[in-house]
Amino acid sequence: MSTINPINNPEDNPRVKVVFDEIRQLRGTDYINNLWRYLAMDADLLENVWTDVRDLMATETLLDFKTKEMVYLAVSIANACQYCVHSHTAAAKARGMTDPEHAEFLRIVMTAGKTNHLLNAMQVPVDNIFDAEQVL
Amino acid sequence: MSTINPINNPEDNPRVKVVFDEIRQLRGTDYINNLWRYLAMDADLLENVWTDVRDLMATETLLDFKTKEMVYLAVSIANACQYCVHSHTAAAKARGMTDPEHAEFLRIVMTAGKTNHLLNAMQVPVDNIFDAEQVL
Amino acid sequence: MSTINPINNPEDNPRVKVVFDEIRQLRGTDYINNLWRYLAMDADLLENVWTDVRDLMATETLLDFKTKEMVYLAVSIANACQYCVHSHTAAAKARGMTDPEHAEFLRIVMTAGKTNHLLNAMQVPVDNIFDAEQVL
Amino acid sequence: MSTINPINNPEDNPRVKVVFDEIRQLRGTDYINNLWRYLAMDADLLENVWTDVRDLMATETLLDFKTKEMVYLAVSIANACQYCVHSHTAAAKARGMTDPEHAEFLRIVMTAGKTNHLLNAMQVPVDNIFDAEQVL
Amino acid sequence: MSTINPINNPEDNPRVKVVFDEIRQLRGTDYINNLWRYLAMDADLLENVWTDVRDLMATETLLDFKTKEMVYLAVSIANACQYCVHSHTAAAKARGMTDPEHAEFLRIVMTAGKTNHLLNAMQVPVDNIFDAEQVL
Amino acid sequence: MSTINPINNPEDNPRVKVVFDEIRQLRGTDYINNLWRYLAMDADLLENVWTDVRDLMATETLLDFKTKEMVYLAVSIANACQYCVHSHTAAAKARGMTDPEHAEFLRIVMTAGKTNHLLNAMQVPVDNIFDAEQVL
Repeated sequence: MSTINPINNPEDNPRVKVVFDEIRQLRGTDYINNLWRYLAMDADLLENVWTDVRDLMATETLLDFKTKEMVYLAVSIANACQYCVHSHTAAAKARGMTDPEHAEFLRIVMTAGKTNHLLNAMQVPVDNIFDAEQVL
Repeated sequence: MSTINPINNPEDNPRVKVVFDEIRQLRGTDYINNLWRYLAMDADLLENVWTDVRDLMATETLLDFKTKEMVYLAVSIANACQYCVHSHTAAAKARGMTDPEHAEFLRIVMTAGKTNHLLNAMQVPVDNIFDAEQVL
Repeated sequence: MSTINPINNPEDNPRVKVVFDEIRQLRGTDYINNLWRYLAMDADLLENVWTDVRDLMATETLLDFKTKEMVYLAVSIANACQYCVHSHTAAAKARGMTDPEHAEFLRIVMTAGKTNHLLNAMQVPVDNIFDAEQVL
Repeated sequence: MSTINPINNPEDNPRVKVVFDEIRQLRGTDYINNLWRYLAMDADLLENVWTDVRDLMATETLLDFKTKEMVYLAVSIANACQYCVHSHTAAAKARGMTDPEHAEFLRIVMTAGKTNHLLNAMQVPVDNIFDAEQVL
Repeated sequence: MSTINPINNPEDNPRVKVVFDEIRQLRGTDYINNLWRYLAMDADLLENVWTDVRDLMATETLLDFKTKEMVYLAVSIANACQYCVHSHTAAAKARGMTDPEHAEFLRIVMTAGKTNHLLNAMQVPVDNIFDAEQVL
Repeated sequence: MSTINPINNPEDNPRVKVVFDEIRQLRGTDYINNLWRYLAMDADLLENVWTDVRDLMATETLLDFKTKEMVYLAVSIANACQYCVHSHTAAAKARGMTDPEHAEFLRIVMTAGKTNHLLNAMQVPVDNIFDAEQVL
């Protein structure tokens, strides 16, 4: 059940086909996951999202792929995005996150959730030493 | 301005002193930041939070310190915890996050925020291949 | 699966019947959706919520109905409320939101999610020109 | 106090100057607000965010400018992004949102916040009629 | 700094005066806090919010006042609403929450934040025994 | 569907068996709910979470059990944690929350959601009288 109707034969639209071909090639699989299949209803939207994700998450950058997926996943958990949690957990594992690392990752996320709530409750003033200009 | 009154001479309480001594030793600085100073009003609470944070963030574990701080920071940003964002940005830098890595980190966090909102809006069904039992 | 037990024959309670009759009349349909059917377990709660929603979303006010539903939906997405996202997407469409407008709406929501995360991470000071008293 | 150090003379970087010139031209003012000034520390990041915002919020699209700003603002409020709330309230007013419309907008946002919490608490099943494929 | 301009002499409007008089009487103080002073710019909005808050938080109902304020505060913390955290911490104390109870309250809130993040990450299936119809 | 694979025969691990035995004893039932069964994949994580929850929610402390569960539930609702909302609604009922109290609890949660959004939108300054040091 979704709020978007997936369209039939999305690759009849050549712009969609270009994106789907890139996804298949970069991932080495024929499977196109639901996010992209549903986004295909609007080529502008599909290209905009795919470009952002591809250039960052499917391209060599400064941070390694596993770290990038764990950061992405951490945000998705805090935002309670079910689809994102599932897809980026799978991606982090595909990028090498082991089960013990996953358990430790969960510990970090839950400890952050713990202190985030504590600090939002206490409203203590931010120390001056944390100011970017002081950290220099 | 806070919702908690910091107490005077917190280290008169020996349990508080033990925690503060550990913080000073592990960080190699005399500075005790506000979170711990305000938590000192309740030794149980202080010890509970410090133990969780120390064993995970100030101890050698599977993931390296920089990665751990970036994951912690990612959650804190998504939860809009001002204090946590400031303190864990400073910690990530202290653990070696460079300015270009910080910029890339911001790109991951904002792209996750982008797709989290998109997926929460589209409510597309989670692909079966993301199920942990399928990923095996 | 819910945390509330829907009651049998809710309209045996005349206060519930009044609300359900208004819903049916204002929407031109016999269908009462689950929110109201489950809320019927407590007439005070039902009337309180229905009054707020009716006077704002089912009544002519300053903003047009389509805009109001899109604003309501935007909040619901950011709060990850599944039921609300489904019901207010349907309502926005019923009030005239076309598929291309829906796609553009998604672009706004996801771009806001993107910059919200970026700004919560950067913690840049708010410009004085944004102060309400300055904008005059 | 921020987590990013704004750089001196950002427009010495020609890529930054291009973006700043576009901002000044599109808004008809010499003022560059803090978001862009701080983002100038990384030209890639600056261009990525500016392109998304410009093509959507500073360009004629399907939805009118005032509606777009109100949707953007609604998301920002739900995400507790202080900077975004201030900047997009000012933008919505600049795009024509009157004080009575602002008051009504607040009513929509707070009523959505109310029912979002109620539904997240009740966990009632989503009605089949809200499924996109049923709405057709 | 706010997004709303407080008006001068709000009690020149008799509808505002009625609300302010009720606030002063129910709280036994002449002080009107900023929420109500800023809301005075729109009498409809002021009355709508005040009625909801008065009938629930300033009236004898089933739950005692201290418990009600702690529940209200818990939600406000999770939503990162600074103003609400400050005002409802003060209210909970005014309703009898002692410092040791406050410390324990913080422990509940932070532990909930911890497990909320853990469960949103693990996405484990909800046990059937938690279904309202089973709990009967 | 989950992101964690539950292991077979978790109680073959004696550390897991200790936790499960405590859960069964403290709750007076043989049923181990999914949170603990899935956490059994990592004994450190299981013990860490169980210790926090047991010492606070399954132990006599200052606040009564029903109040503690309502505060825990309030946070879980605001965080949109489905599993937590289901499990802690059931726990609050098991600790004595009646149906009319549940309805009133929902009213508090939704009213907090309402004013949280309103205040996050208005960004009114926090009154000095709410400062902890002033409240003394």
